Amino acid sequence: MAQSRLPRGFKASGVHCGIKRFNKDLALIYTDSPAKAAGVFTKNRVKAAPIHVTRDVLSKGLPIHAIIINSGNANCCTGKNGNNDAKKMAQVTSENLGLKFNNVCVASTGIIGKRLPIDDIVRSIPVAVKRLSEKGLKGLAKAILTTDRREKIKTLRFSVDEKEVNITGVCKGAGMICPNMATMLCFIMTDANVEKDALNTALKRAVNNTFNRITIDGDMSTNDCVLILANGRSENKIIRKNTKSFELFLGMLNEVCLHMAEAIVKGGEGATKFVRVNVCGAKTEDDAVAVARSIADSCLVKTSVHGQDANWGRIAASIGASMAGGISQKRMEIYLDGVCMFKKGTFTNPSGRRTSRIYKKKAVRIDINLRNGSKCAGMFTCDLSKRYVEINSHYLT
Amino acid sequence: MAQSRLPRGFKASGVHCGIKRFNKDLALIYTDSPAKAAGVFTKNRVKAAPIHVTRDVLSKGLPIHAIIINSGNANCCTGKNGNNDAKKMAQVTSENLGLKFNNVCVASTGIIGKRLPIDDIVRSIPVAVKRLSEKGLKGLAKAILTTDRREKIKTLRFSVDEKEVNITGVCKGAGMICPNMATMLCFIMTDANVEKDALNTALKRAVNNTFNRITIDGDMSTNDCVLILANGRSENKIIRKNTKSFELFLGMLNEVCLHMAEAIVKGGEGATKFVRVNVCGAKTEDDAVAVARSIADSCLVKTSVHGQDANWGRIAASIGASMAGGISQKRMEIYLDGVCMFKKGTFTNPSGRRTSRIYKKKAVRIDINLRNGSKCAGMFTCDLSKRYVEINSHYLT
Repeated sequence: MAQSRLPRGFKASGVHCGIKRFNKDLALIYTDSPAKAAGVFTKNRVKAAPIHVTRDVLSKGLPIHAIIINSGNANCCTGKNGNNDAKKMAQVTSENLGLKFNNVCVASTGIIGKRLPIDDIVRSIPVAVKRLSEKGLKGLAKAILTTDRREKIKTLRFSVDEKEVNITGVCKGAGMICPNMATMLCFIMTDANVEKDALNTALKRAVNNTFNRITIDGDMSTNDCVLILANGRSENKIIRKNTKSFELFLGMLNEVCLHMAEAIVKGGEGATKFVRVNVCGAKTEDDAVAVARSIADSCLVKTSVHGQDANWGRIAASIGASMAGGISQKRMEIYLDGVCMFKKGTFTNPSGRRTSRIYKKKAVRIDINLRNGSKCAGMFTCDLSKRYVEINSHYLT
Repeated sequence: MAQSRLPRGFKASGVHCGIKRFNKDLALIYTDSPAKAAGVFTKNRVKAAPIHVTRDVLSKGLPIHAIIINSGNANCCTGKNGNNDAKKMAQVTSENLGLKFNNVCVASTGIIGKRLPIDDIVRSIPVAVKRLSEKGLKGLAKAILTTDRREKIKTLRFSVDEKEVNITGVCKGAGMICPNMATMLCFIMTDANVEKDALNTALKRAVNNTFNRITIDGDMSTNDCVLILANGRSENKIIRKNTKSFELFLGMLNEVCLHMAEAIVKGGEGATKFVRVNVCGAKTEDDAVAVARSIADSCLVKTSVHGQDANWGRIAASIGASMAGGISQKRMEIYLDGVCMFKKGTFTNPSGRRTSRIYKKKAVRIDINLRNGSKCAGMFTCDLSKRYVEINSHYLT
């Protein structure tokens, strides 16, 4: 099964250490071949301890061999103890795998402000090491989830210089999903041989086009983190920037990230609809992004999608509220599921037959043409349902 | 009854013209003495037709004698017809009252994108004129509502130079309530004798401290508008800027606006809790506002308040997500209903007895000390409930 395969040289495992009552909550990624690594992190000014530790580890520039991840507890706002706990997770993992401290990254997701049950984690790390397997992808994907409804995995295979290259990503999403690193956690493994600078650039670009373009509730997490490990086991000619093979690799990486970003939105807390917002005709890309984000973040737009109500007026208000430059009521056009609702400054009054299908499908589209330039941007979001309120009114602190 | 009194020289009425099925939907304010006027309008880049018309009228500088207002239809995104309709409302009103076009302001609130039933409105304006009465305050307050649960009125009486001065405000709120002119419509009448420039300054300051500090769903309206008319009938010595009487007038105006801003939040769609967010210890006022707004706009914070769940972690994440300057996890402090939850970088672990009362009352408080300076700012919001989703999934387009 293609879905459950790790790239060459990678092993993974997922075990239960006791943070959650029943489900897997501790995951381990391991590559025996040394991997180049790159990471993109939350821009939130309040960052979790593992974010600081992993950034420090990456800054040392040593090869990365492992990532240790827990779910159910974010290890955020936990002070000095939290920092020590994150380091302890990396340290115990490195010892059990015969590695150095700076060969191991660490990540956490879950509730903010509670101390990690570090003894339980330390006790379970050897178990996670023992269970490492080439078939461990699904266990890994399960062990990083919180309120997600299912695991999110994407695998791609392609050729670079006639060598087979694999990229596999796993991620978790659900809530507190917003601007600037939308998913909480995403780990990408590849056996591609990639120059470090190229890997960094490719990851940043792919994340910007995918994870940074989704929003569920406008809430930015403290733990967002995308890590990529490239262990070179494909033995392809090294991929450098500004080459054909780089463009190919970037395209494939983008594809993996896009799939996962979409999966996060589809699995959004309480989501019943997948909403694609496309803005074109903007003067600058920033304007296009601002308009798309303003629509995608609007509670009123999201509830109208939920109610299958073709309320384009709320979209018009969101476009204006974006404060983007060059918005003209006379020029802008609004399309819902392909039906033009607003053009030349007024309601187009389409037939009931045409409007009756708007927002009826599971995947819906909102297209805006600002008719003010040539720049475009897209954004993915979901609807806002009572179930979202229910889930988040009763999430245990 | 103090609540139902208009300042001297003012009359008002509210009638049913047929935009709504049953309730009053056309309101008129009239002062026989010429009034100085000032207005503050939505910053949304997509503005409704009446906003443009009223801004033009005010710019002419003639005395204002009347405001004609309809509810149930925002007259927004209605193109040239919409602009003509707004002008027609003002014109017919001026004719029926023996005034000039530029003596009359116009305002609308309700659904975006539908053309006004202008014939019905024109037919009903003479009725509204005929019903004008010194006792018409409640009718006026009723006729400007949309999904609001009740009318919002505030009256204050005080003395300037031993002359009695009255300020009366009416407003409507409910949804699409957010930054930069939060309420959709607010009309303030006073018999104070105020210099025009002083009136303008006082209104801007009062709005900035009150209506601009509330948020219900983060959605900025296209029709927001606060208008004040001062007809000088108190015959007090004219109030000029930088005087004691100006400070007194500003204080009273602020009080009226604050009362109405709070009433809007309390009447927020689906609201069950009134939330006061106070941020102090910021380096700049902008930082304090940014942090307060980030917390008040967070769906996750609002659902946790709704669920009476003392989830301070989501508040910590919102503080960081504000991107305000000088935020330090080690210094910042979080208090929920007076109980310190986070200090010196960690959870304070207060007793169950103390935390059990958090978010239990109808009015709750979130206090933040950034411990980074001396600037403060407050924000009012409400919780996010299933009822909000229900109302807004089924609002008829």
